[in-house]
Amino acid sequence: MTTAYDPGNVFGKILRGELPAYKVYEDAHTLAFMDVMPQGRGHALVIPKTPSRNLLDADPAVLGPLYATVQRVAKAAVAAFGADGAVVTQFNEAEAGQTVFHLHVHVVPRFSGVSLRPHGSRKAEADELAADAEILRAALA
Amino acid sequence: MTTAYDPGNVFGKILRGELPAYKVYEDAHTLAFMDVMPQGRGHALVIPKTPSRNLLDADPAVLGPLYATVQRVAKAAVAAFGADGAVVTQFNEAEAGQTVFHLHVHVVPRFSGVSLRPHGSRKAEADELAADAEILRAALA
Repeated sequence: MTTAYDPGNVFGKILRGELPAYKVYEDAHTLAFMDVMPQGRGHALVIPKTPSRNLLDADPAVLGPLYATVQRVAKAAVAAFGADGAVVTQFNEAEAGQTVFHLHVHVVPRFSGVSLRPHGSRKAEADELAADAEILRAALA
Repeated sequence: MTTAYDPGNVFGKILRGELPAYKVYEDAHTLAFMDVMPQGRGHALVIPKTPSRNLLDADPAVLGPLYATVQRVAKAAVAAFGADGAVVTQFNEAEAGQTVFHLHVHVVPRFSGVSLRPHGSRKAEADELAADAEILRAALA
């Protein structure tokens, strides 16, 4: 089932600066940015800088730094957007919903009474993404 | 929003041996066992032994060992059940779907063409859980 890492994926291009992203946090091991097809307000993605296709082929050493950033982003997003909780999801392979084949973790704030949109169903407006990125970036600074 | 850790939760009881579980893996930092209300075949849970309510109040030091076990369980489950992928999900607070307030990570194998049941919708038969636990335990040994 598992195939090799393809560096031409969108997140690989973001890491190499070949595509823009609404970045909110970066450290030596990880990068966080807004999901351009958010399932809800404040939906962010966290990726390791070390390439892997997903969790199934990742070097275990990347997981501690990766989830430390996931925790940091989740706490900041809940506080910054006044959310009631957060879902942290990670898909492995197309049959599990993975659409970009660079390991990534979804951090999705949840608000009481508000359902999530399906994964990857609607591209958000650029001004909405920029505004929410600014809020989350400030909370992470 | 966040309240304190209540040691009377079901996973706290499993950790203290006060309730049984279909255990599949254990090390110094983590325990993995079958979800008794599986969303699909082979659905397992991984928890840290260090108490926290969820990711929002967890000691960052637990995350590396926790997700190392998540990765181990995900790889074993995909191989053991012949799955096409796996979803790794973690819910924070009731509004995000959390029902047991000890940090836990869901590892749910995905099979092409098979939808997941809703979270916590159906208790599985004991013999089904025991059989799948045996398969997963063997793959993790």
